[in-house]
Amino acid sequence: MTSPTATTNAQYEAIPSITDLNNADLSAQLRWALDHKTKPLGALGRLESIAHQIGAILGTMQPELEQPHALVFAADHGLARQGVSAYPSDVTWQMVANMLTGGAAISVLTRQHGLALKLIDCGVAKALPPHPDLIDAKVAAGSADASQQAAMTPAQMWQAIGTGRQLVSQLPGNAILLGEMGIGNTSAAALILARLSGRTIEECAGAGTGMAAQALAHKRQVLQQVLDLHAQATEPLDILACMGGLEIATMVGAVLQAALERRVIVVDGFVTSAAVLVAARLQPFVLQRCIFSHQSHEQAHGLMLDAMRAKALLQMDMRLGEGSGAALAWPLLESACRILREMASFESAQVSGRSD
Amino acid sequence: MTSPTATTNAQYEAIPSITDLNNADLSAQLRWALDHKTKPLGALGRLESIAHQIGAILGTMQPELEQPHALVFAADHGLARQGVSAYPSDVTWQMVANMLTGGAAISVLTRQHGLALKLIDCGVAKALPPHPDLIDAKVAAGSADASQQAAMTPAQMWQAIGTGRQLVSQLPGNAILLGEMGIGNTSAAALILARLSGRTIEECAGAGTGMAAQALAHKRQVLQQVLDLHAQATEPLDILACMGGLEIATMVGAVLQAALERRVIVVDGFVTSAAVLVAARLQPFVLQRCIFSHQSHEQAHGLMLDAMRAKALLQMDMRLGEGSGAALAWPLLESACRILREMASFESAQVSGRSD
Repeated sequence: MTSPTATTNAQYEAIPSITDLNNADLSAQLRWALDHKTKPLGALGRLESIAHQIGAILGTMQPELEQPHALVFAADHGLARQGVSAYPSDVTWQMVANMLTGGAAISVLTRQHGLALKLIDCGVAKALPPHPDLIDAKVAAGSADASQQAAMTPAQMWQAIGTGRQLVSQLPGNAILLGEMGIGNTSAAALILARLSGRTIEECAGAGTGMAAQALAHKRQVLQQVLDLHAQATEPLDILACMGGLEIATMVGAVLQAALERRVIVVDGFVTSAAVLVAARLQPFVLQRCIFSHQSHEQAHGLMLDAMRAKALLQMDMRLGEGSGAALAWPLLESACRILREMASFESAQVSGRSD
Repeated sequence: MTSPTATTNAQYEAIPSITDLNNADLSAQLRWALDHKTKPLGALGRLESIAHQIGAILGTMQPELEQPHALVFAADHGLARQGVSAYPSDVTWQMVANMLTGGAAISVLTRQHGLALKLIDCGVAKALPPHPDLIDAKVAAGSADASQQAAMTPAQMWQAIGTGRQLVSQLPGNAILLGEMGIGNTSAAALILARLSGRTIEECAGAGTGMAAQALAHKRQVLQQVLDLHAQATEPLDILACMGGLEIATMVGAVLQAALERRVIVVDGFVTSAAVLVAARLQPFVLQRCIFSHQSHEQAHGLMLDAMRAKALLQMDMRLGEGSGAALAWPLLESACRILREMASFESAQVSGRSD
């Protein structure tokens, strides 16, 4: 894959219109097919809902997930200098390297499930050596410190959205899994949630990768300062530029493009959900294409999901990011498709129906 | 595999002693290994708990699940004649046939995950034609009507336990997934739960595969009659014989043997959990070897899990049985093992630790 930044052009630096998937005929056919499989009505529960949703996204009665890509968007955050994470910023590039050499959780899970894994350098502070699975989409060597100024300029934000859109447009297949890596990005996600939902920073900011009480109190104090500094930012894109991160902005572009192309979008935890929340505030029908893989242990993820009226598939008390929850849930999506494609109907299997 | 009934002998018709797995050294080593993987402490949540549990069961730091078998125990229930299910008894053999020809949900899911699928005829009313994946362990052509007499004689119960033990002893590999098929067996499971937990039949009996309010009221009335008729049955094996089913008794034997041999036991929903509950009341350390795959939509499954202080992995609102929840959750167990085997440590990946 060529570097999208090299060829990004103005056509991607815009917000596409995402249309309503609603197709009453297909929806009724999917419901009928699921209801006639050899099982009591609705007995496969949420697996049936997912089968229905994927059928609707891909526009087929026989959905098949093809060439899925796990995309891990990485960037550093100027705000991390204010001590909002338990880990130093160097961990961002070190973990990107770990993912590329196969030792990270997301490496293990994508290997297990045959998912292509691509790392996207949206703004890692350090220069990373080239690697076949590393996509150079670097907008800057990290975002600015949002407690002092906007995290990115409007031009940087549009560049990130454009590269996110373009890199998805170049992917084969019909499904993407969202992941991220960026020390400090739980704070950016909390800020986006607080401003877009109107909730307090106490509600929206938790312990991230793991913080003691005193460090958490400090984090919340810093985040309140950021919210105060950017009080004028109330629209999704202004909030993204002022308080987001380069990997979040790139994900917003990726989500919009994937939605436009009717790809299945598998959302991971708190940070990827923040990107989806921004995209959905811009284009609400994005959510029709999203499957929320798990509810993070990060306390505010439940509020984030509520803000999108979404319910996650798994509740495993995970809080790692990287796309680990999305990759973990992947086989459930495969199962849902196979139920539609492979299960017999009462008629075809000659099984008796209900007595009543 | 030869038919276990042909060779069952007295050695299996007993309850084996299941010892405490507790190995403080191994447990500490597993905890240390998980804590040093490249992730914040505990960030993989319940996946870490499962990795730890499987390591403890298999007695290794590098757990690998080998030749897993999904075992579907099938039988008919005399009690079904009292109208306690929405489906006719013929559905039992028809669904067994559907599983063998590959059209059932459990067929689809085991194919997806490369799980061996074996059907065990513990007491299907109809004579089933031979099939390479069908194990003849038939004790009788269905259990007796528990509203009139004991569902099985003590001799039948012991035979079922013995065949369950013996067939597991003949399996290769180190993991089994429990499944079941039997019209009326939700009632048997509800009766076992009610008597073993002391809860009312209203709490323990739900809509099964799907019943209208009036049918459910009738079902509860019948089940109360069964409880009253067998008021003297208060010990686990007496309860099993009076109110259980042939597939449940066979599963009790299978669970005990698997626990004895330190196999990983993946429990499905309400009915398989009833067998585990009986086995655990006989030998409490059985539960150390059990992973509860999902919490069924069947209302009383939560109470059943509470009775074993167990928490299920998935909550997908499923209520199909067959082992479908166990098979659906299977990749999560694989993921847990791979985390232990394949993830890098902070040291090996040269990733910085916490700042604080």
